[in-house]
Amino acid sequence: MNIYKSPAFSQVHLTDPILASRQKTCLDTTIPSAVAKAVETGRINAFDLENYHGERHIYWDSDVAKILEGIAYALTLRKDEKLQKIFEEWIGRIVSCQQADGYLNSYFSAEKPEERWCNLTSWHELYCAGHLMEAAVAAKDLPGGQKLFDALCRYADLICDTFGPGEQQRRGWPGHEEIELALIKLWQASGNRRYLEQAAYFINDRGTEPNVFAAEGAALETLVNEQADKPVREMTEACGHAVRAVYLFAGMADLAGAAEDKELLDVCEKLFENIASRRMYVTGGIGSSFKGEKFTADYDLANGSLMYAESCAAMGLVQLAVRLFNQTGKTKYLDVLETALFNGVLSGISLSGDEYFYTNYLEVNDNLVCYNSGSPVRQKWFSCSCCPTSYCRFLTQTGRFIYSVADHEISVNIPVANQAELCLKDGHVKLRIEGKYPYDGKIRIIVENSCTFTLRLRIPFWCRSWKLLRNGVRQETPVLSGNWQAGETVELDLDMPAEFLYSDPRITGNLGRTALRRGPLVYALEEIDQSAPVRELIVLPDEPVELVEAEDLPAGTVALRGSALREIFSQEGLYRTEKPVCVPAVFTAIPYALWQNRGKSNMCVWNRYQTAR
Amino acid sequence: MNIYKSPAFSQVHLTDPILASRQKTCLDTTIPSAVAKAVETGRINAFDLENYHGERHIYWDSDVAKILEGIAYALTLRKDEKLQKIFEEWIGRIVSCQQADGYLNSYFSAEKPEERWCNLTSWHELYCAGHLMEAAVAAKDLPGGQKLFDALCRYADLICDTFGPGEQQRRGWPGHEEIELALIKLWQASGNRRYLEQAAYFINDRGTEPNVFAAEGAALETLVNEQADKPVREMTEACGHAVRAVYLFAGMADLAGAAEDKELLDVCEKLFENIASRRMYVTGGIGSSFKGEKFTADYDLANGSLMYAESCAAMGLVQLAVRLFNQTGKTKYLDVLETALFNGVLSGISLSGDEYFYTNYLEVNDNLVCYNSGSPVRQKWFSCSCCPTSYCRFLTQTGRFIYSVADHEISVNIPVANQAELCLKDGHVKLRIEGKYPYDGKIRIIVENSCTFTLRLRIPFWCRSWKLLRNGVRQETPVLSGNWQAGETVELDLDMPAEFLYSDPRITGNLGRTALRRGPLVYALEEIDQSAPVRELIVLPDEPVELVEAEDLPAGTVALRGSALREIFSQEGLYRTEKPVCVPAVFTAIPYALWQNRGKSNMCVWNRYQTAR
Repeated sequence: MNIYKSPAFSQVHLTDPILASRQKTCLDTTIPSAVAKAVETGRINAFDLENYHGERHIYWDSDVAKILEGIAYALTLRKDEKLQKIFEEWIGRIVSCQQADGYLNSYFSAEKPEERWCNLTSWHELYCAGHLMEAAVAAKDLPGGQKLFDALCRYADLICDTFGPGEQQRRGWPGHEEIELALIKLWQASGNRRYLEQAAYFINDRGTEPNVFAAEGAALETLVNEQADKPVREMTEACGHAVRAVYLFAGMADLAGAAEDKELLDVCEKLFENIASRRMYVTGGIGSSFKGEKFTADYDLANGSLMYAESCAAMGLVQLAVRLFNQTGKTKYLDVLETALFNGVLSGISLSGDEYFYTNYLEVNDNLVCYNSGSPVRQKWFSCSCCPTSYCRFLTQTGRFIYSVADHEISVNIPVANQAELCLKDGHVKLRIEGKYPYDGKIRIIVENSCTFTLRLRIPFWCRSWKLLRNGVRQETPVLSGNWQAGETVELDLDMPAEFLYSDPRITGNLGRTALRRGPLVYALEEIDQSAPVRELIVLPDEPVELVEAEDLPAGTVALRGSALREIFSQEGLYRTEKPVCVPAVFTAIPYALWQNRGKSNMCVWNRYQTAR
Repeated sequence: MNIYKSPAFSQVHLTDPILASRQKTCLDTTIPSAVAKAVETGRINAFDLENYHGERHIYWDSDVAKILEGIAYALTLRKDEKLQKIFEEWIGRIVSCQQADGYLNSYFSAEKPEERWCNLTSWHELYCAGHLMEAAVAAKDLPGGQKLFDALCRYADLICDTFGPGEQQRRGWPGHEEIELALIKLWQASGNRRYLEQAAYFINDRGTEPNVFAAEGAALETLVNEQADKPVREMTEACGHAVRAVYLFAGMADLAGAAEDKELLDVCEKLFENIASRRMYVTGGIGSSFKGEKFTADYDLANGSLMYAESCAAMGLVQLAVRLFNQTGKTKYLDVLETALFNGVLSGISLSGDEYFYTNYLEVNDNLVCYNSGSPVRQKWFSCSCCPTSYCRFLTQTGRFIYSVADHEISVNIPVANQAELCLKDGHVKLRIEGKYPYDGKIRIIVENSCTFTLRLRIPFWCRSWKLLRNGVRQETPVLSGNWQAGETVELDLDMPAEFLYSDPRITGNLGRTALRRGPLVYALEEIDQSAPVRELIVLPDEPVELVEAEDLPAGTVALRGSALREIFSQEGLYRTEKPVCVPAVFTAIPYALWQNRGKSNMCVWNRYQTAR
């Protein structure tokens, strides 16, 4: 049923001003620093079941698996002997943990060998297994990788033997979903259909009666948090822990595609629509509640203390969106993908590549009260370090989101500069895209070899006017088919004005507030760029906005400058009777994802605006 | 050191439009319904140590004690045979629980007799003891009350024997403060100085090393929450659980007065200043965080989901404020007292007298996400039902806040209509106050007997212009002394315009928002009174505000009507590019304390305003 599939990320060599440098930093810094942290914190030594005596955690295997997946992608992108050694060493360590029956979990084998599978609700065994499977699929074709792949197939076999409807099996679901999509990857890489069937079992049995988690003692709140309070096909709203939710939905989308299950795809589309139309920050951040990093209610999208918008959740949303686009061809999924990618994902990691937000606030000021892991300052690592390890595997593979391909068609999903070699049914197509997208709407696409295919260009939701030329000739539709000669050129000019956004008034925290967007980039006022405290500024949406070069940010970063009022109080006191006066001011906004790369500073995405009388 | 003392509440017969009717409702409905709930929930039967087999809670004795204190005040205000029977029956029940050594706690005697005093940090024994002492002092002079008083003196003796610095004693502090002020009341009622000394011990030993709660395993967060992380004299900010904090500070103020301890009084004044200037809602609500109903940080005063502002905390603030006024004569304490009384206290109870807020939100809309006990709809009762039982004892005694008296002076603290007979050194003074305060600033005071004293009238902080006549003759100072003849009349006209308030911009949730206040009353926009959703209204502070009669609220309730803009969106969608347009509208505001007495409706205290260019 899939219309498109994504290319291998290694087929797309990024040369744009954002993703390319973020990827390079990931290779140069993020992965090496995560490797160092994994060693330093004991996550690697913990695989030594007998001689390691430090603390272990039930989710540590997943962190190692995600870094390892990132290492595999890094080695695919560029040779690195040192990293190759680590890759092989880590695989050796992991595989050494495998039990005779295939079971592979450093925590339970070392700490609680008797309690295997005893608490599916909370103990993350199947979640860790899923991440190890993803790492194994990533590693398979690299030197030394087959060993991990074989080990994980054996582990998957054990899981298939253990959980299911059969008489020799027990019913069971993962408390933290992830293994569903991983099993489907394992099926694709191994050809063993049993893994697909196991994914289908986990998805279709989930939430049916008698409830597996309830039998373990879980309360309704926990069932909702883990998307297990009802069968997945009956879900109509995105509920519970956001990362769990989008991982499950991604697995459901994969299964829908593999099984040609239109009903399940409809469920996925409905759930996505609920997220995108009611439960998503303007940055693509999701899971708005600090209380359990989860979905709460429609329009519950606070900007400060109450919020979460975990980095991992934004990455998960990208992974869900690309699946739904590939299956349906509906560009609204790419709109969300692009929004999340350039804003809510990239905000979570510093330009230096080794500091991370867990919570991606949309407003930070001196008076912010933080809950849980929600530091408003990027951290080097976390005790639960899912976000840093997610970046290792995410930023290395961003190339795959740029295009989607069908038998005879290429969809340019995100027209950033790159060089690509894409496989279609009748052969390879070499493409080159030039331009400064997303800082500029002018895109030039050069077809570098002669071939026959349809080139489908996406007109993003934020673009209301565009011009398309094929070899200099004006085109009326963004779908260009036919025979292409080497050197043919397509020029797309997407009108990309800075625009002020307003929220649905049910997002009460955004009442009287406006955000700035230009192209797919959401902008923020960071205090370091202003001549007054951000909280005193009232932007004037009716005045023109000027593009300027951002200061002390990567060359080419476009900042926006516009008119504002500065509200000044002459009176002191907690509550005052004197109305503040306004004086003219200017504001400078930078891309949201780049805030807090020049030291600590207050920041606000949704700023006050002057109402017109 | 006390400059003033408060009169007995029974010396002041209220006849004003607000407090008098609230007091009557308390007698007619609040106390009878609390009595019924105490019976229905098992709180009374729980005193039967042997034959009651339902659930008990460690704090239940305090609920019963607070209702009983309210019953005692009610019986002092008006005869009620049925209530007198309940009063005597309850006292019998309570006293029957007393152990041979004087210990008196229904929970521990029945459920955990071996665990007496084992967890001072969390188990509320001394807190319950304190409330029983307050009830005993209230009951003492009523028929059948002496029995309770004697029992509580015996219990107090046991507590004095048990806790202290002596060799036969152990160190100990109450985890939930309250007993300090109760012991001082017991000293005043019994003349036994030992109780004062015990209060001094609890206050002065608190927070010193080695830390009593830390020795029980409490973490620093708990120590801070219970104001026990440092000696009380070293505290500079109001921290932790708000009710605990203000109860402790009230006890400290009492001790400072009794011991003429200027240093301790300074500490109390500093802590109060921290609350009033940085940690108090405009309504006098305190303890802003939903997370533990506690003080957090300066200017952390959110209006919606994050907030708490527990009803009990506002009542506690009134009790603290009156103590500090009586000791210092500084009217700023009365300003806060009056604000809390008419707004944050009265908002917590319905006009019907039997429904309560635990959390006093300043903004409620359809999208409010609630945490903990924070229902935005008043409830009949709570599992932890401290707020309903607090109203039983609070609304019966509001008469005592109206005046403070010195040897030869009467301070009119809150000039509501009433008839009073106050005891000065040289005899009684009969006063009558007429007027509609706080709905009107015109106050007429009639001295009803010939006597010599100084009448001190308070000019509230919100009043910037006033006129005072004594027997028709203009006075320049609000301090009127000399000989008074029966029938002499004082007329005070306090200018009471409706005013728009603005917050310190560090209260980020109030940026671009304004509140309305007239006299001591804070106003709110309730949706039922508007022609558009509250969230769409932008008030215009530069336009005049008109006084109108509120609809479907008690006769005489003054509502405010003014000009607004209504913001209208023509575009749909979570995020939109079309700037909303504004059309003229009006708003109607009612006193905040009266909201949600006409069914469920959205409400907002801090509303958007139009900035001037």
